[in-house]
Amino acid sequence: MSLLVNGSIGIDTVKTPFGVSENCLGGSAIYFSMAASFFAPVRFTGVVGNDCPFDLAKTFAGRNVDLAGLEVRKESKTFRWSGSYKGSMNEATTEAVELNVLAEEPPKVPAAYKDSQFVFLANTNPAIQQQILQQIDEPVFTAVDTMNYWIENNLNDLKALLAKIDCLIINEDEARMLANEANLICAADAILDMGVEVIVIKKGESGSIVSAVSGERFALPAWPSVEVKDPTGAGDCFAGAMLGYLASVNQADFESLKTAVAYGTVAASFSISDFSLKGIGSASREMLDARLQELKKLTQF
Amino acid sequence: MSLLVNGSIGIDTVKTPFGVSENCLGGSAIYFSMAASFFAPVRFTGVVGNDCPFDLAKTFAGRNVDLAGLEVRKESKTFRWSGSYKGSMNEATTEAVELNVLAEEPPKVPAAYKDSQFVFLANTNPAIQQQILQQIDEPVFTAVDTMNYWIENNLNDLKALLAKIDCLIINEDEARMLANEANLICAADAILDMGVEVIVIKKGESGSIVSAVSGERFALPAWPSVEVKDPTGAGDCFAGAMLGYLASVNQADFESLKTAVAYGTVAASFSISDFSLKGIGSASREMLDARLQELKKLTQF
Repeated sequence: MSLLVNGSIGIDTVKTPFGVSENCLGGSAIYFSMAASFFAPVRFTGVVGNDCPFDLAKTFAGRNVDLAGLEVRKESKTFRWSGSYKGSMNEATTEAVELNVLAEEPPKVPAAYKDSQFVFLANTNPAIQQQILQQIDEPVFTAVDTMNYWIENNLNDLKALLAKIDCLIINEDEARMLANEANLICAADAILDMGVEVIVIKKGESGSIVSAVSGERFALPAWPSVEVKDPTGAGDCFAGAMLGYLASVNQADFESLKTAVAYGTVAASFSISDFSLKGIGSASREMLDARLQELKKLTQF
Repeated sequence: MSLLVNGSIGIDTVKTPFGVSENCLGGSAIYFSMAASFFAPVRFTGVVGNDCPFDLAKTFAGRNVDLAGLEVRKESKTFRWSGSYKGSMNEATTEAVELNVLAEEPPKVPAAYKDSQFVFLANTNPAIQQQILQQIDEPVFTAVDTMNYWIENNLNDLKALLAKIDCLIINEDEARMLANEANLICAADAILDMGVEVIVIKKGESGSIVSAVSGERFALPAWPSVEVKDPTGAGDCFAGAMLGYLASVNQADFESLKTAVAYGTVAASFSISDFSLKGIGSASREMLDARLQELKKLTQF
């Protein structure tokens, strides 16, 4: 039930109709770990520069997150991202991005992490995702995120990666772009043909749909949130709760995936309710469990 | 359990990436009645001109649709609509429209229909919808569709209508426009404040969400259709199966509404699978029931 994540640690500035959050802690590995640690211990890997103002040990205090895989590079600078959201806030507009350490070598996976069974590789260059994956001995279930930039600019490495992993977790526009197919269900099937066992397509306020090579499908609406302040990190919280749950039950069959995606939906709903980590940070496993039951009620007929 | 519909009968020309269907039978009352009649007898009201090339008695042969409310106006011309769909086909582009009889007086509701208990008023000028509604004695459950044009151009009449009906069934863009609110859940709540008991928001390939003044909510993904040839009439088939089911159980409590919306989802999925009425026309109650069970399985965790 060991769970490893590789992803970014970011200094984020986010502007939404509800306010501005400047130079706050963000990044895929951070959001993922916050959500995943409600379910299972997390082995964290990621890199920051010498300028990182955040004490991650403090961020994750009391949470089951092992920071042995956190590298601090004295000569480097931390990843920075500025973005804004408008209207229904389904999509971020990137205002500025400084890759900094993310443009360098990926972190070294600590020897003690090499036996990790569940692995999440957050969005980055698929060539780097492959380098991380090669450092894990025999993962049981590997899930990967990517984005339009890599579909457009490094499709070969992405396709090579897809042939080696179990699950791709992407948003609907990315799925349509990757498959070159407007119908989202057909797009999912085309991506399954690229070699993954399962594809999870995230649709923001419209929920998610899961398709497997077995032919099984699962679809879930989003939680009906009346308070959406900052969607940043929602996708990583979704993946975190999903992988965290799978690691906790030590299974990745389709029935377990359904519950995992439902927990992902619930974790995302807490994340978007406030700026930066405040939403997911103020949740608890009990709150996630209670909302999971409400989600069940919301969709049952 | 009597069910009355008022809506359009159209001569449609539709172009999608999968082909063209010229001068075929369409219109909201037609699609609605096809879907509703799987569940309950339908009392049909609508008007055509002298040029109508369709034999509606033949269209509805073997289906439980009473055409006593069909008016043929010798001096008038039938409603015509031409539209096209592109990409993921979630939205129609109107290429041409000739209102013709729809710009005239609404049909007279036959005396034998005045005791109708379930009523669906398809999209038209809300002033006309009110005129129809006034001809019904004591409806138990009234549902209404509208569109952006009336929200922009006849909001007063629309708001007066909303205060008199039970249920509004509209798409997500219309809901946001009517409520002047980007968050769809907040938009639903704002529309409930306008006087309806229930609002059903249709999201095309992303399913639907139902909100009630009681505070209850229900959300359902769309059926995962790999074959979408022509979305025309999907919303009216949705409403048809929904109202038809409610009329068949003679109830409109929230639990019944859930099943009704699920049947609506299923009817819409058959409608979009082929051009014009071919999709919903080739379905059967058994096929709807079977897909309802599959929809249940698709969403359960």
